[in-house]
Amino acid sequence: MIDELSALRLIKERFQKVSKNIAIGIGDDAAAVKINPENLLLATVDSQVEGVHFVKGVISAKELGRKAIAVSVSDIGAMGGIPKFFLASVGFSGEEDEGFLEQLMDGFQSGAEEFKVDLIGGNLSSSQKLFLDITVLGEVEQHLMVKRIGATPKDIIYVSGTLGDSALGLRVLQSKTNREKNWFLISRHILPQPRLKLGRELAKKRLVTSMIDISDGLILDLERITIEHGLGAEIYIEQTPISSYYRDCISDFTKDLYDLALSGGEDYELLFTSPKDKREEIKEISEKLNIKITEIGCVTTKPRVMVLDSNRNEIKVKRRGFIHFGNY
Amino acid sequence: MIDELSALRLIKERFQKVSKNIAIGIGDDAAAVKINPENLLLATVDSQVEGVHFVKGVISAKELGRKAIAVSVSDIGAMGGIPKFFLASVGFSGEEDEGFLEQLMDGFQSGAEEFKVDLIGGNLSSSQKLFLDITVLGEVEQHLMVKRIGATPKDIIYVSGTLGDSALGLRVLQSKTNREKNWFLISRHILPQPRLKLGRELAKKRLVTSMIDISDGLILDLERITIEHGLGAEIYIEQTPISSYYRDCISDFTKDLYDLALSGGEDYELLFTSPKDKREEIKEISEKLNIKITEIGCVTTKPRVMVLDSNRNEIKVKRRGFIHFGNY
Repeated sequence: MIDELSALRLIKERFQKVSKNIAIGIGDDAAAVKINPENLLLATVDSQVEGVHFVKGVISAKELGRKAIAVSVSDIGAMGGIPKFFLASVGFSGEEDEGFLEQLMDGFQSGAEEFKVDLIGGNLSSSQKLFLDITVLGEVEQHLMVKRIGATPKDIIYVSGTLGDSALGLRVLQSKTNREKNWFLISRHILPQPRLKLGRELAKKRLVTSMIDISDGLILDLERITIEHGLGAEIYIEQTPISSYYRDCISDFTKDLYDLALSGGEDYELLFTSPKDKREEIKEISEKLNIKITEIGCVTTKPRVMVLDSNRNEIKVKRRGFIHFGNY
Repeated sequence: MIDELSALRLIKERFQKVSKNIAIGIGDDAAAVKINPENLLLATVDSQVEGVHFVKGVISAKELGRKAIAVSVSDIGAMGGIPKFFLASVGFSGEEDEGFLEQLMDGFQSGAEEFKVDLIGGNLSSSQKLFLDITVLGEVEQHLMVKRIGATPKDIIYVSGTLGDSALGLRVLQSKTNREKNWFLISRHILPQPRLKLGRELAKKRLVTSMIDISDGLILDLERITIEHGLGAEIYIEQTPISSYYRDCISDFTKDLYDLALSGGEDYELLFTSPKDKREEIKEISEKLNIKITEIGCVTTKPRVMVLDSNRNEIKVKRRGFIHFGNY
């Protein structure tokens, strides 16, 4: 059982540091931070609820703390922005002990360092099930910000990294499949890597017309940058980037090779659209940052997402994605 | 059971408005807002968890939605700031239906209008028990911001309004005590009025050395502006402001007249310190805004909060306040 005073003491010990941009951090009614006057302030919040987003024992408290930050930070990256600060609202069930709290703080600290964000406040509460609610504040120059709306017909659709690893990693964790052999997939689920540098670079060079981070599955998130704005997309299933680990493991769960790559969710890769004439520049960024970027299709005028095989025949997709509500 | 699409649709219908300060509101990876370049950005988050902070049936969904905003907005007021935007993260249990959602949105809308804050984003999730996590962003001029730290020995301690009404109102709701007769107390619990105008006016006139909103009870919150910074306080119990409704009703629950006024919590009144020579100006503000402001004691150098009777003898206080964790 965690008590208020030790929780607060631990938070203060770890995070009550001074920085020139923080006028008031932890410990007052509200935090007060300076934001560069020419920039827009970005704000996003994501929840991690026990039994909904995670299961204790499958993810450690440290990994959970870091992941909760990673997930929100990823949304800032998908706007082309730079994350700066976060607030952490935690609802503790009666089950967590001091050790859990220490580990959770380790995770917050690890995320704070890795993503260069400062904890400036939050809330502690009791709850039937553990929950974490992380609000991340960031900034972006107004003329560089990349929205979900903005794609144009014939734009190329790109995706970073490989897809489906995280969803497959979760299935490995939930099953009796060999864990040691599938460490890569598991780590993709437990230690997601938001593409902050890539998002920022694409925005700075003004190469993209729309962008989103893939949290609920490729198809569903692709709909959010096309169908929701009166456009559509064609994607070529065989160009969907999958890892060799994914390829080796997926048959333990389904015969459908691309199932989790198309609809698995929690990839936190960037999905974006870019005009054809920017192809070379996209390639240069990929090489410079050493991040795989794959062309998977193009934007169309018909408000549908069509998945095509190598003969350009449409394939029926079983699932569009993984919805557990999500941020808005 | 609430489904994602209807929840999102409702949020968009109600809150997807355009304002010159909102570059991106609901519907992208993150919200993007403009903040006046000379000001500090204020940020605070508070949770309302079912079974911890509220009980369904005791408070309606509409009142709950409004109160969740009021509680966070109150923290911005206690810094002397102006609330501007909010993010609403909601965890729905399986029990709420469409009607509940509609009412909750009515409450958000009511709070948004009353406190002049725009919803710019949030998160929807499932949860075992309903929870609301409201992040409010606001702004304040750096030289006007009022912190919890800053009191000086011999400063006068003031409090706005009357204390204990909310805690007593909750007890009325939980008991068989006549509700009609105690409507004032109940409304103080269910429809708290954050003192935004007063907080702002005190800050603008630079009359206060420290300030906090009373969420966890007078004694506990007084400790936060004194003991936590190496100071103490003397307060005169008979000067503690209580309403006539409180006076008439408290004996149904306890013989100790001031019990809930000293430690009840959820008052959302302002507690602040001010030098003696500002007394007249404080009085003028009280008259101008038509808000009762009462002198209840003074700041001391001994790091203790002492409660004194009319003969200046110390009274032992049973409880310091009501802690259910809280924001940090």
